[in-house]
Amino acid sequence: MSPPALSLAARIRAGETTARAVMEAALARCAARGPEVNAFTALLPDRALAAAEAMDRRIAAGELVGPLAGLPFAAKNLFDLAGIPTLAGSRIRRDAPPAGRDAFLVRQLEAAGAICLGALNMDEFAYGFTTENSHDGPCRNPHDTGRIAGGSSGGSGAAVAAGLVPLSLGTDTNGSIRVPASLNGIFGVKPTYGRLSRHGAFPFVHSLDHVGPFARSVADLAAAYDALQGLDPEDSHQAPQPPEAVTPGLDAGLAGLRVARLGGWFGRLQSAAARGAVEAVAAGLGATRVVEWEMAEASRAAAFTITAAEGGSLHLPTLRTRLEDYEPLIQDRLLAGAMIPAAWVQQAQRVRARAAAAMRAVMADWDILLAPATPVAATPIGQETLVLDGVELPLRPSMGLFTQPISGIGLPVLTVPVQRADGVLPIGVQLIGRPWTEALLFRAAAALEEAGICTAPVAPAFAEGAI
Amino acid sequence: MSPPALSLAARIRAGETTARAVMEAALARCAARGPEVNAFTALLPDRALAAAEAMDRRIAAGELVGPLAGLPFAAKNLFDLAGIPTLAGSRIRRDAPPAGRDAFLVRQLEAAGAICLGALNMDEFAYGFTTENSHDGPCRNPHDTGRIAGGSSGGSGAAVAAGLVPLSLGTDTNGSIRVPASLNGIFGVKPTYGRLSRHGAFPFVHSLDHVGPFARSVADLAAAYDALQGLDPEDSHQAPQPPEAVTPGLDAGLAGLRVARLGGWFGRLQSAAARGAVEAVAAGLGATRVVEWEMAEASRAAAFTITAAEGGSLHLPTLRTRLEDYEPLIQDRLLAGAMIPAAWVQQAQRVRARAAAAMRAVMADWDILLAPATPVAATPIGQETLVLDGVELPLRPSMGLFTQPISGIGLPVLTVPVQRADGVLPIGVQLIGRPWTEALLFRAAAALEEAGICTAPVAPAFAEGAI
Repeated sequence: MSPPALSLAARIRAGETTARAVMEAALARCAARGPEVNAFTALLPDRALAAAEAMDRRIAAGELVGPLAGLPFAAKNLFDLAGIPTLAGSRIRRDAPPAGRDAFLVRQLEAAGAICLGALNMDEFAYGFTTENSHDGPCRNPHDTGRIAGGSSGGSGAAVAAGLVPLSLGTDTNGSIRVPASLNGIFGVKPTYGRLSRHGAFPFVHSLDHVGPFARSVADLAAAYDALQGLDPEDSHQAPQPPEAVTPGLDAGLAGLRVARLGGWFGRLQSAAARGAVEAVAAGLGATRVVEWEMAEASRAAAFTITAAEGGSLHLPTLRTRLEDYEPLIQDRLLAGAMIPAAWVQQAQRVRARAAAAMRAVMADWDILLAPATPVAATPIGQETLVLDGVELPLRPSMGLFTQPISGIGLPVLTVPVQRADGVLPIGVQLIGRPWTEALLFRAAAALEEAGICTAPVAPAFAEGAI
Repeated sequence: MSPPALSLAARIRAGETTARAVMEAALARCAARGPEVNAFTALLPDRALAAAEAMDRRIAAGELVGPLAGLPFAAKNLFDLAGIPTLAGSRIRRDAPPAGRDAFLVRQLEAAGAICLGALNMDEFAYGFTTENSHDGPCRNPHDTGRIAGGSSGGSGAAVAAGLVPLSLGTDTNGSIRVPASLNGIFGVKPTYGRLSRHGAFPFVHSLDHVGPFARSVADLAAAYDALQGLDPEDSHQAPQPPEAVTPGLDAGLAGLRVARLGGWFGRLQSAAARGAVEAVAAGLGATRVVEWEMAEASRAAAFTITAAEGGSLHLPTLRTRLEDYEPLIQDRLLAGAMIPAAWVQQAQRVRARAAAAMRAVMADWDILLAPATPVAATPIGQETLVLDGVELPLRPSMGLFTQPISGIGLPVLTVPVQRADGVLPIGVQLIGRPWTEALLFRAAAALEEAGICTAPVAPAFAEGAI
């Protein structure tokens, strides 16, 4: 299958269609079918159409335009978009002044030619894995609208899987890109901690926040990721690592890649679907060995503690005055987090450092490790618990069982989708790399896509007229 | 003046003397004159002589040896040295098992040919600016042995200024390299946060700890710094910035360097000596403008909070059981720090990020900013207070008035010494750069040394027989 985003951009550049026509179609589709998945919290037709017309003028004038020229995209509503308040999924920020300019990642995509048409639903302040947002209503999975789209970047996942846009932006603190990528059956990448600028993205947990794109093909995801790279002098957390384009290496194949499966923690508490997806990907990548990383559970516990403390501290001034305006699902967690002693957090940071060191030792012998992205495929909206291996677990936090230990130590992860039989929900697998080795993950994902093992078609009910 | 360390290494390489002869002389001098400054807590003659003999054999065999071949150096006693416990200035760690191998920086210097002969006095657990160590006794300033050598790397400063060794290693969390460099009248560099590996150095404050070298000439300091660079897979904090040698650019001169003085916070609460030293350096670098960084005091407050909380948390388990074995000067601070709420520390981290952003804006127009390294020259051992601008201040924390705001935001600083009239104590000036621009600082320091404005002779009473 040709990559939906890049193919469309090529057609726009070639004059086979116009950016204006594509944008009109996308806006019409978002208006008509968007409500079925409740992915959007704002559409920006004026901004988008003006940008599309400007793009058409540039193309008509023979100007050199970027690889994403004319492509509609949308951003999780915690990214600043000039002229509208940055909600971050909250009621509280509905009164916030409109953002003065776009977030860095939005500007990067637009510099490559893409055009933002709207803002996407999410868990309030990114604290959740289900996008059951009490203010905006739950985001719905396009594969089954009675089910969750995952979170916290639920809108970002659902909008792409429903063919409302070919690209979207999300964030991932404990799994918030990987969980919706998995449940919506699309590709998503959570880069190395510090790789992409977070400037203009509403913060949640400084130590753990990551940003990244979603797409329905590896080439599209790579093009978006390459556009997003770049050092941002305004970002205080970004590492001074020079950008490294992943697109040129996509076709390099699997030769030389050493891939193994993560066992232990990552082999338990999961559905047959999750297990089967990992097996399919492992077979596709020639991964026969299972390796252990003993610190997984400790790394997850550390990420939990740091999340609660940093999140609680960030919101403490507002919790004091507007507690009842917060999402009911997170009030207690934020309050408890705000009272954690610093010594606990320091201890959690030390555990994280030890977990990272232990993983470095494991990854000395491996380029890519495989793990489920979620323990199960999409669950019904409102479901509270989950039974795995005979253990009853709270559903919402458990969606991050396998993502949280990995982002806790900042490793890059590309989530690849495994489609199952017709009418059976897709589920994702994490390709986990060493820091700064995103290019290897993209190579492996491209090979899996090429082999037909990992593909991301639009959800069947939304296939017609997909963008 | 020819650089003492590099000149000596050149003579050893040329066969004009031997590493063994140099090491014997250094050990004899440390034994004879070391006690006057109390810089050492351990001498390692067996290790040092064996290494010197091995070096002589390599030279005799015509092997290629490093630029520091045969040079004696010493390390603050928080760096692991194989076979002895890493004291970190404490009584508590006298029972610790001996280190299994040397710290990364020690190995780097030895890989370049230098030879470690001993461990140096410091403030307990690096929490102080005066090296008035209650267990090992105060380190004394070679310019006036009734005065402090500064801290927490006091031994590292005194040993170099007394000509006991030509190079030493120290650490700097809030000023612990820059304060002793200033008070002992020598060169010292605190690199960009994350630049050099801290592996094998006993930690104090994860968010703020830096490591770096001291020397009596810029070329020596540059050679040591270049040897210390290198990515260490075992260090969890090091940024993936490739090493960038500073030695080749030392003679490039001042052309193109934009230098200004920091005003506001950095222009108050200081002695005439500190002010005069900054003026001399400013004149030497053609710096006529004074710029303001409004966040200095807030950055210092943030560093204080983070230091107390991270330090307190690190020591909490031991504070619970062995409080009375801690340095009396820090017991109360560690206890109070261990009880700080996480939300305070998060707020301090946010202030730090804002302070860093404000400084980035200032430094968009400047390559180097100048500030005093210490408010005063060396004070008498035991002095408790300091009167500056008519304000009585507690002496020990006030030594970091001008260093703490800068390390709080991780900027690289090279401290250059200004010698004053005979019998008058030297004092240092901070050359502050943007992240990862150490090379510019070395260039400026070399020009100041070449012009005779900043030099670091051995303290007069110790000049004879200096190594």
